[in-house]
Amino acid sequence: MHTEPGDAGHDLRHHGDAEVRDDGSALVDLAVNVRADTPPAWLREHIAASLAGLAAYPDGRAARAAVAARHGLPVERVLLTAGAAEAFVLLARALKVCRPVVVHPQFTEPEAALRDAGHSVDRVLLREADGFRLDPAAVPEEADLVVIGNPTNPTSVLHPAADIVRLARPGRTLVVDEAFMDAVPGEREALAGRTDVPGLVVLRSLTKTWGLAGLRIGYVLADPETVGELERAQPLWPVSTPALAAAEVCVGTRALAEAAHAAHRVAADRAHLLAGLDRFASRGVRAVGPAEGPFVLLRLPHAAAVRARLRSLGYAVRRGDTFPGLDDGWLRLAVRDRETTDRFLTALADALGPH
Amino acid sequence: MHTEPGDAGHDLRHHGDAEVRDDGSALVDLAVNVRADTPPAWLREHIAASLAGLAAYPDGRAARAAVAARHGLPVERVLLTAGAAEAFVLLARALKVCRPVVVHPQFTEPEAALRDAGHSVDRVLLREADGFRLDPAAVPEEADLVVIGNPTNPTSVLHPAADIVRLARPGRTLVVDEAFMDAVPGEREALAGRTDVPGLVVLRSLTKTWGLAGLRIGYVLADPETVGELERAQPLWPVSTPALAAAEVCVGTRALAEAAHAAHRVAADRAHLLAGLDRFASRGVRAVGPAEGPFVLLRLPHAAAVRARLRSLGYAVRRGDTFPGLDDGWLRLAVRDRETTDRFLTALADALGPH
Repeated sequence: MHTEPGDAGHDLRHHGDAEVRDDGSALVDLAVNVRADTPPAWLREHIAASLAGLAAYPDGRAARAAVAARHGLPVERVLLTAGAAEAFVLLARALKVCRPVVVHPQFTEPEAALRDAGHSVDRVLLREADGFRLDPAAVPEEADLVVIGNPTNPTSVLHPAADIVRLARPGRTLVVDEAFMDAVPGEREALAGRTDVPGLVVLRSLTKTWGLAGLRIGYVLADPETVGELERAQPLWPVSTPALAAAEVCVGTRALAEAAHAAHRVAADRAHLLAGLDRFASRGVRAVGPAEGPFVLLRLPHAAAVRARLRSLGYAVRRGDTFPGLDDGWLRLAVRDRETTDRFLTALADALGPH
Repeated sequence: MHTEPGDAGHDLRHHGDAEVRDDGSALVDLAVNVRADTPPAWLREHIAASLAGLAAYPDGRAARAAVAARHGLPVERVLLTAGAAEAFVLLARALKVCRPVVVHPQFTEPEAALRDAGHSVDRVLLREADGFRLDPAAVPEEADLVVIGNPTNPTSVLHPAADIVRLARPGRTLVVDEAFMDAVPGEREALAGRTDVPGLVVLRSLTKTWGLAGLRIGYVLADPETVGELERAQPLWPVSTPALAAAEVCVGTRALAEAAHAAHRVAADRAHLLAGLDRFASRGVRAVGPAEGPFVLLRLPHAAAVRARLRSLGYAVRRGDTFPGLDDGWLRLAVRDRETTDRFLTALADALGPH
């Protein structure tokens, strides 16, 4: 692990959706980390019912209260946002920050938003040799904004909550992107709901588990002062009525039970994928482990060529080289059901070529 | 008309929606400027169909191309936004501005967004004695950002396009909020689509005519450099899939014909309302004219008390005192169908009390 100033060598604005659109629409999608077969019918129907009220301006109060209740927090600690992407822009633009540090490899939007807001961003690069695990001592003491993902996209590493808490300092904002935490059984290592960590800002998404990437809904949990600062930088009516309807129901009892069930299924499906990938260990295919998210990061020889061959065989996987700290020797795979995974593994054998 | 530094004496964050929610849900709504009986069924169904694609990230390209085609512009001159409210925040935060000036009375969000972004904002106050008409010479020469609405909310005044163009200067961004222009028959005095005015930024809304206030969709027309600057300040995926679906269809041939028809009906309904109000001229009730928007601004004695009595009679109207340049002697009424207007006028007679 080492610290380096951010460079312009990675396309921070490349995302998995670009790998499946355009010519990729007929591909089996292992590039985008959205749960398959979502949104479920009951959720789609709930959202459709909200369309009857479109002529009225959005009223976010019920959804905000529901999110607060789900995490046992007062509403003053909750801010609904148009997806986590809006939260990154608000953090970059509304807070007074001098030394932002992003822990990589991770989702690139936080750094992109900070740069677009005029900040120079330092990077802490976690290393493959350390299993991409966090060493809290590697984060510079003077950092007044630290961004980390947990579990981390794309490494699938779940950092211990206690390690992340050690990053908290008076005068420092500690942003923990928990966009995939609801895919971890029991949400162990979650910091959402904690009020005893100074400067803690937790981001949550409803996009991945619920298949609402198109709806733009997420939320921020933070102290009331930070929530107020971010809120003042939001547009009026920042979250649409259908998104509010979805948020309210997705933090309810029924949805939480379904998400918990899905998290266990993801764990089983991931174990199946990892066991299958293990068969290619002699070909130099290695998954970062232990993987705890709904995706797996792979190192393999000739990854770019393998990815191209997989496309020609009908499978979209996520390139790794746009993530700071990785290069073109990496691919990210979404965890899918066993049947899809088995077909993908057959294609991977083809794509790797003769032994 | 005179220029003054903005003050904190008006609640810039008060909007008509606050007047009809909470206890006001049973009120007949003349407070919010959204067309009644919207969205139409065909539009609601089109939006509902888009929900099938919610698991995918939004792809704004088709909607952007449709908006560009509607105004005869290249796509590089179009930016889709999560409502005009997002556009105001982007303008306030992304552009390098030193002397912003807002022409009042008008919609308060542009000034609120500028202040929240740390700007001090000067006001040009149009005067009742001038019929709230624009005198381009009143805008300070050093202003590098000028914001004006056309037709203007809340005065319903439609400024001649030629007068607004006279505000353009090299080095000045001229923002014309045309949120209600599609309610003006023939969209006369529109600047949308013009490329010969330096620094021109036109904002459009699909919220009012189409009843999509809950969906958050609007757009900016500007030179490609300005569009690029604003776009870099946007979150990733700023507009939701249902909103994109709505935008694409609302700038199509069928929708434009329906909007044109609606604009003529608004004009007829407004004439009916104004004729009815004229009966109260002897009681000191005066409408600002000529009114060209889907709302009317009234001066009347004891306006606050009349508004309270109207609420008790079942009618929500918009207070005027939160608009800079107005005070508690003003009310704004949305134009509604003849039957609603007639019932309202009966209530107004009651609310005004015995002659």
